Amino acid sequence: MTAHEATAIEIAAMRRALELAERGPAAGVNPRVGCVILSPAGDVLAEGWHRGAGTAHAEVDALSHLRSGQARGATAVVTLEPCNHTGRTGPCAVALLDAGIGRVVYAVGDPGDHSAGGAEHLRDAGVEVVGGVLGAEAEAFLDDWLFAARHRRPHVTVKWASSLDGRAAAADGSSQWITGEVARADVHRRRALADAIAVGTGTVLADDPALTARDAAGRLLDAQPVPVVFGTRPVPADAAVLRHPRDAVLLSGHDLVADLHLLAERGIRSLFVEGGPTLASAFLAAGLADELLVYLAPALLGGPRLAVADLGIATIADARRYDFTDVTRLGDDLLVVARPNPSRAPRPSASPTEGT
Amino acid sequence: MTAHEATAIEIAAMRRALELAERGPAAGVNPRVGCVILSPAGDVLAEGWHRGAGTAHAEVDALSHLRSGQARGATAVVTLEPCNHTGRTGPCAVALLDAGIGRVVYAVGDPGDHSAGGAEHLRDAGVEVVGGVLGAEAEAFLDDWLFAARHRRPHVTVKWASSLDGRAAAADGSSQWITGEVARADVHRRRALADAIAVGTGTVLADDPALTARDAAGRLLDAQPVPVVFGTRPVPADAAVLRHPRDAVLLSGHDLVADLHLLAERGIRSLFVEGGPTLASAFLAAGLADELLVYLAPALLGGPRLAVADLGIATIADARRYDFTDVTRLGDDLLVVARPNPSRAPRPSASPTEGT
Repeated sequence: MTAHEATAIEIAAMRRALELAERGPAAGVNPRVGCVILSPAGDVLAEGWHRGAGTAHAEVDALSHLRSGQARGATAVVTLEPCNHTGRTGPCAVALLDAGIGRVVYAVGDPGDHSAGGAEHLRDAGVEVVGGVLGAEAEAFLDDWLFAARHRRPHVTVKWASSLDGRAAAADGSSQWITGEVARADVHRRRALADAIAVGTGTVLADDPALTARDAAGRLLDAQPVPVVFGTRPVPADAAVLRHPRDAVLLSGHDLVADLHLLAERGIRSLFVEGGPTLASAFLAAGLADELLVYLAPALLGGPRLAVADLGIATIADARRYDFTDVTRLGDDLLVVARPNPSRAPRPSASPTEGT
Repeated sequence: MTAHEATAIEIAAMRRALELAERGPAAGVNPRVGCVILSPAGDVLAEGWHRGAGTAHAEVDALSHLRSGQARGATAVVTLEPCNHTGRTGPCAVALLDAGIGRVVYAVGDPGDHSAGGAEHLRDAGVEVVGGVLGAEAEAFLDDWLFAARHRRPHVTVKWASSLDGRAAAADGSSQWITGEVARADVHRRRALADAIAVGTGTVLADDPALTARDAAGRLLDAQPVPVVFGTRPVPADAAVLRHPRDAVLLSGHDLVADLHLLAERGIRSLFVEGGPTLASAFLAAGLADELLVYLAPALLGGPRLAVADLGIATIADARRYDFTDVTRLGDDLLVVARPNPSRAPRPSASPTEGT
């Protein structure tokens, strides 16, 4: 055992800190964080957790339960590296120093440009700091928040439903229903898991979607994603999306990276892009789809209405390559889940010796 | 036990007749048929099987081993209803009557317009006739021949490989390789199982395919499908398909039903339609695809080169509906097998309440 390894008591305290973190709100700008303050003898002095943006961070919440001087020489066990940033609250690193904390054990490094550096600041001030304790568990727990913090944008799922030949609708535009009830219920379930759901103005004007997550009987599910409309055409005042339980966010879509950055700043960690083909293809062409959900119906439609439009790909070597991560039968349909595999080099285009 | 049921001895003889049938050639115009002649006491008097078009039918082959008069009152156990048709050989029903056979037990009725009626002819002449004995086994054994005989055409498999968005090639026409080695090996294995393999003249001119079934090292497999080229553009004299181990069949494609009928008359029971999109779509639009084999790559291409072209479908209610009968991971790719389900009524097009 060295000062650079966590003790068994500290690991147990980290497990408790993760439990405390779960009490915080799962959505929003800030992560869920838990903290346990241990006496030098290893007794729990205080517990704390973060209750959402504008409230005390977990460390400060825990310290608030102690008398002045009680934390001197104590160990702070916290699920996220203490922040080094003055936002709506002061930096936790400073609060810990001020309280006389002698040792800090944390699970995951803070990925924020402004907020990172807390561990270094504490070390410079003579505090023992151990990072990465139960790191994998904490990474998994903070999954979507870490993704948004690291990429400065929400995790983007692009979903479409098509016939086996890649059509989203028949020639006359009719598309209800390509896929069956089981597949459509799966979409609603996944909508409810996302922080936000996006469509283009073309889809708003054509289909007037409610963009709510509903059960089979049409009742609203408890969790509702924020509706996001991309495009420059005006959304009609009587559009269903404007009656959504959450306020709609309207974005131009001219600069998707900037738009996504804005959504992340509003606390949106996951975005479910539903369509239509123009919006979905813009995300795909920009390489901004972290996951594809493709609902394939056992049907052929032919015709001009494609689920995926042009992607600006000229030759096979430039194909956007993914990995199929899951394939599931949903009633009569098939759900294919794919994720980009940037490590998979495009295949070279061989000289044609036999085409089929 | 009545005269209308097979005895245990006759059922055992039918099993033997099916074994004998397997000795015949698996391809060609005629089915594989086996025959066992039993004495009235149940002893095996003779065995026979059909060796292919132009040779003796199984019943006649079996009878040929008997002395004149030896078959009097005997039972003929035969896997297919004795034919009633004078083709290159005389009708078996007459041969059995002439030999004095008293009872005929068969497995599957003859589906041919010209050759059926043997059972009725025998009954009219006073012979006891029992049909359907081990019928399911014999149906399975004669699967492709029965399909071709009943439908007057080969069983048609339409195969394509596409990206997840339904493209068969990138915008510049490059398509090698959308799918990986495992998927391509699967195609070759299935080619070898088909009696014939079809492409359009467009594919011949663009890709000059060999249309052979090969192993991973490029060696020809033992079984080679007959190459069939559909279209009216001339096939160049140096086209690879004209160096195929089997003679190529050239058809206009103007009347696919007539073309398929012609192939069936040449003994082709199964046709593997490989492409390109124009030919595949013609079979799909005509409702002549009995099976779809769709190799889906985990890639997106966008662009104009679709695996399935227009099918003349105006509205969603007219979508061609299938059942997914098998979904298999092949390396990085996915093989989706689908079969038409004519009993599945098209879904009505609901009024649009929500499009996505």
